[in-house]
Amino acid sequence: MLIKKFAVVLSGCGVYDGSEIHEAVCTLLAIEKAGACYECFAPNVNQYHVINHLTGQVVNQTRNVLEEAARIARGTIKELSRFDPTHFDALIFPGGFGAAKNLSTFAFDGADCLILPEVENAIRNAYNTRIPIGALCIAPTLLAKVLGKGNLTIGNDLDTAAAIEIMGSMHTSTLSGQIISDRENKIVSAPCYMLNTQISTIASEAEKVIAELLSMM
Amino acid sequence: MLIKKFAVVLSGCGVYDGSEIHEAVCTLLAIEKAGACYECFAPNVNQYHVINHLTGQVVNQTRNVLEEAARIARGTIKELSRFDPTHFDALIFPGGFGAAKNLSTFAFDGADCLILPEVENAIRNAYNTRIPIGALCIAPTLLAKVLGKGNLTIGNDLDTAAAIEIMGSMHTSTLSGQIISDRENKIVSAPCYMLNTQISTIASEAEKVIAELLSMM
Repeated sequence: MLIKKFAVVLSGCGVYDGSEIHEAVCTLLAIEKAGACYECFAPNVNQYHVINHLTGQVVNQTRNVLEEAARIARGTIKELSRFDPTHFDALIFPGGFGAAKNLSTFAFDGADCLILPEVENAIRNAYNTRIPIGALCIAPTLLAKVLGKGNLTIGNDLDTAAAIEIMGSMHTSTLSGQIISDRENKIVSAPCYMLNTQISTIASEAEKVIAELLSMM
Repeated sequence: MLIKKFAVVLSGCGVYDGSEIHEAVCTLLAIEKAGACYECFAPNVNQYHVINHLTGQVVNQTRNVLEEAARIARGTIKELSRFDPTHFDALIFPGGFGAAKNLSTFAFDGADCLILPEVENAIRNAYNTRIPIGALCIAPTLLAKVLGKGNLTIGNDLDTAAAIEIMGSMHTSTLSGQIISDRENKIVSAPCYMLNTQISTIASEAEKVIAELLSMM
């Protein structure tokens, strides 16, 4: 049996301006623990901004999404524009504000957000190739904007849930530890740190999402 | 029963200039999965340098160890100078070059390295208070320099092992998945990414180290 291969899309390194680190690492760990393997991708663009994670203040500095995401990937990462869904069995987006600030403008524009072209292409091509797609935390907003269909969850934040429905998807509220699986559209989502929770819950939700994605292959 | 509390000392955010992110996150996860809790600490000093993790090149930029470590800690982190071992049941150092570049000068000076005063105080005070101390990857070099005794492992790198013995500790070679426990000195170490391994092994070693530290309390 061939080992199943996941493409993991990162958006920087740090919850407030990039990928949420616990979600990203727990995703990689869950993939490996399930007997699968992964390759990391990120867009080669500058971050929207840099946040001092101690104070929450904006820092006057420029950082590149691909270079910062390489910290989580230990240097082994590719430009997202090179993602080819025919070489993978699933695509997954961990969360963090990077998904809503660097991969899209959702943090600023809500349902009217723009999606980075390489992100849109990755989602659309994965969907059309019929490989399953996972999204954690705020990242399901990317799927809603690009696909405009499917059943998703971001937990129970009313504004974000409403934006998802405006973009054409359905939103189902969840509590920590729950995931939402849309088997028709092959998309799986989990609230992760969109709810006030702790790292062991993130690990558990990531494992459930990976198991569900594997079951759809 | 009171919940056991670990102090986790971070050294930045990224394997080449700070804390190794997988080791740090797997440590936090292992602590929580064992039913314990944690508080993160880092020194409030600038990093030795900043490395572009995509290319391996030095970047002309200044980053602060505490602010970057706050990315892993999701903003909840304290200055290491405020660490008081009487409020904790264990102290643990994940690895990454930050331990050898920011917490000490081991990466440049080997056995002649200097240790950051707040790091030396944390280790010495924890040892004298008789709370157990864990160290992953390259971080056991900190314990060797400060304590000058005890049985430690960094895997099987001959130069690093020799430096540990010059500094007064004993080195025991390990393979991936193994840990070394010195119950007399209450110190536990594991090779982690000092050996060429993968994230599921890091999680497994972190769990073994945390279990061993808990058994010493």
